[in-house]
Amino acid sequence: MSDSTPPLAEFHHFREKMNDAILAADNLVIKRFFSLDTRTYRAGALDAKTKELLGLVASTVLRCDDCITYHVVQCRKEGVTDEEFYEAFSVALVVGGSIVIPHLRRAVARLQELPAQ
Amino acid sequence: MSDSTPPLAEFHHFREKMNDAILAADNLVIKRFFSLDTRTYRAGALDAKTKELLGLVASTVLRCDDCITYHVVQCRKEGVTDEEFYEAFSVALVVGGSIVIPHLRRAVARLQELPAQ
Amino acid sequence: MSDSTPPLAEFHHFREKMNDAILAADNLVIKRFFSLDTRTYRAGALDAKTKELLGLVASTVLRCDDCITYHVVQCRKEGVTDEEFYEAFSVALVVGGSIVIPHLRRAVARLQELPAQ
Amino acid sequence: MSDSTPPLAEFHHFREKMNDAILAADNLVIKRFFSLDTRTYRAGALDAKTKELLGLVASTVLRCDDCITYHVVQCRKEGVTDEEFYEAFSVALVVGGSIVIPHLRRAVARLQELPAQ
Amino acid sequence: MSDSTPPLAEFHHFREKMNDAILAADNLVIKRFFSLDTRTYRAGALDAKTKELLGLVASTVLRCDDCITYHVVQCRKEGVTDEEFYEAFSVALVVGGSIVIPHLRRAVARLQELPAQ
Amino acid sequence: MSDSTPPLAEFHHFREKMNDAILAADNLVIKRFFSLDTRTYRAGALDAKTKELLGLVASTVLRCDDCITYHVVQCRKEGVTDEEFYEAFSVALVVGGSIVIPHLRRAVARLQELPAQ
Repeated sequence: MSDSTPPLAEFHHFREKMNDAILAADNLVIKRFFSLDTRTYRAGALDAKTKELLGLVASTVLRCDDCITYHVVQCRKEGVTDEEFYEAFSVALVVGGSIVIPHLRRAVARLQELPAQ
Repeated sequence: MSDSTPPLAEFHHFREKMNDAILAADNLVIKRFFSLDTRTYRAGALDAKTKELLGLVASTVLRCDDCITYHVVQCRKEGVTDEEFYEAFSVALVVGGSIVIPHLRRAVARLQELPAQ
Repeated sequence: MSDSTPPLAEFHHFREKMNDAILAADNLVIKRFFSLDTRTYRAGALDAKTKELLGLVASTVLRCDDCITYHVVQCRKEGVTDEEFYEAFSVALVVGGSIVIPHLRRAVARLQELPAQ
Repeated sequence: MSDSTPPLAEFHHFREKMNDAILAADNLVIKRFFSLDTRTYRAGALDAKTKELLGLVASTVLRCDDCITYHVVQCRKEGVTDEEFYEAFSVALVVGGSIVIPHLRRAVARLQELPAQ
Repeated sequence: MSDSTPPLAEFHHFREKMNDAILAADNLVIKRFFSLDTRTYRAGALDAKTKELLGLVASTVLRCDDCITYHVVQCRKEGVTDEEFYEAFSVALVVGGSIVIPHLRRAVARLQELPAQ
Repeated sequence: MSDSTPPLAEFHHFREKMNDAILAADNLVIKRFFSLDTRTYRAGALDAKTKELLGLVASTVLRCDDCITYHVVQCRKEGVTDEEFYEAFSVALVVGGSIVIPHLRRAVARLQELPAQ
């Protein structure tokens, strides 16, 4: 990747390290929120793949690069194909407008860092 | 419904009337955007139901009541069940936080205006 | 109040009714989020008044009228004076800019609906 | 107008009344901000019409109906034609995406409330 | 420039490379959106300079650094002077508040990378 | 720190340098806004510590890393303890949702750069 974004391995390392620091502070509300966040994407009436796609599109219209990276990785694990990724991105682009485009560029760069489906 | 929100029939009437006024102005970019917006939710690699759910969650985290109303109606047409609606709302709530809650209240009120699935 | 905003009693009525409907749907993530939301404002290292002021300013810069109404009422219960309200509003205004002003107008109208401190 | 939005006269009445209440609270930061807000749109290197168009597009992508109403009125006073309005709206729509559309509908309804140019 | 932002040449390189990758995916909605985005800023009832200023202010209040960079470059090409830039920034700052300031810093750093007008 | 964020000293250096450049442009509205911004956090009916906490939470829900860094430093100067920081963060997290988490990670990394309280 480029554009001063750290590579995926560094992203994961910083994410893990700081999540550990946050949870070590032992704030009950924050700990419960983190636990709830994980539970949100478990399969239920909607399967895990659909939920991850919902998380990806929500993160994209809210323009949070780290959240996008996280859900791109999770979506790939759930078997989302390139064509499905681009259709999800097209929804985010039309709903959120051209300000979403720089985040699409970085999302696609993340996709290129992952093994092909 | 309550909370000063107009009933669904009035929402649709105002929406149609003003869309007509906007398109009558004959601005090429706006006309093409409206056409693109419609095309975005057509079935492709992702089916129409999944795309409408993506549109619903995007609209919810961006907190646009009219967009939520539109996609609640479309999702119902695509057969989204109550349990699936609430799982989609749960993703929007956790991603977007408690500021999403007032919009959830109005989304659920819209759902109550529609015939049960 | 005016500006098509419902009076405080109607706000509370709709809020209670729809919260009941949402919780009746029995979605675990949503129920836990609602419970967590309540717990967030309990006195801890920061007292309840400070936390409600934080909730008020967060709601104001995010421009959520219903959230502002809720926290204006809670702040008043915690003894926030008019002068303190306006200082909190001044922080929200400078951080969030002139787009915050319409929400300040409605926040002050809500304040006028409450018994004077 | 419809869609539960108050007519322009009521908008102006509420705006004036609440601005008076806010300024009467005599918070120095808020008073200076209001004064600065007015000064921002005065003709300088850019003329007043261009500045009002900038304010209109900023308000539209941030999706603040009251701010949009205010700048629609000001733009009309500065001689902005219907065709120019729609070109400004097209920029806001493409930058901000389909979530801008409900605000465009209300903006155009406001425009219809004003005397034709 | 500093603040970990890549220099303008690197910005352009990454932008071109990723736009090519996105368009190569051959998603019809995305391709049409990109084409529409370009068309939006063509001279019409409003001249190209005014439209680029609208795009700049929209990007600034939405706080998208890459979009700001793009429109700063385009505005300069259209002959926007330093004084006009700062007046456009002043509208964005007052509308969007102090959270806009970090983006102003980077916008001005971009301006310093360009040949003086 | 990591995650491509510049260290605190570099943040301060870039901030000072660019603020100087902005103020040197001598735009009256921008200069007054900067002066107003400073005045906003002065002790009044609310003490400086409470105001800095309000600024921190506002910056966090609006997801502006540079603003968060600034207020983390100011809060520490005002004697905010780790436990108080995490309670303020918990309000921001619940109001703003999981998209706030990447900013919390960077906020906590900034906190680790500062001398312990």
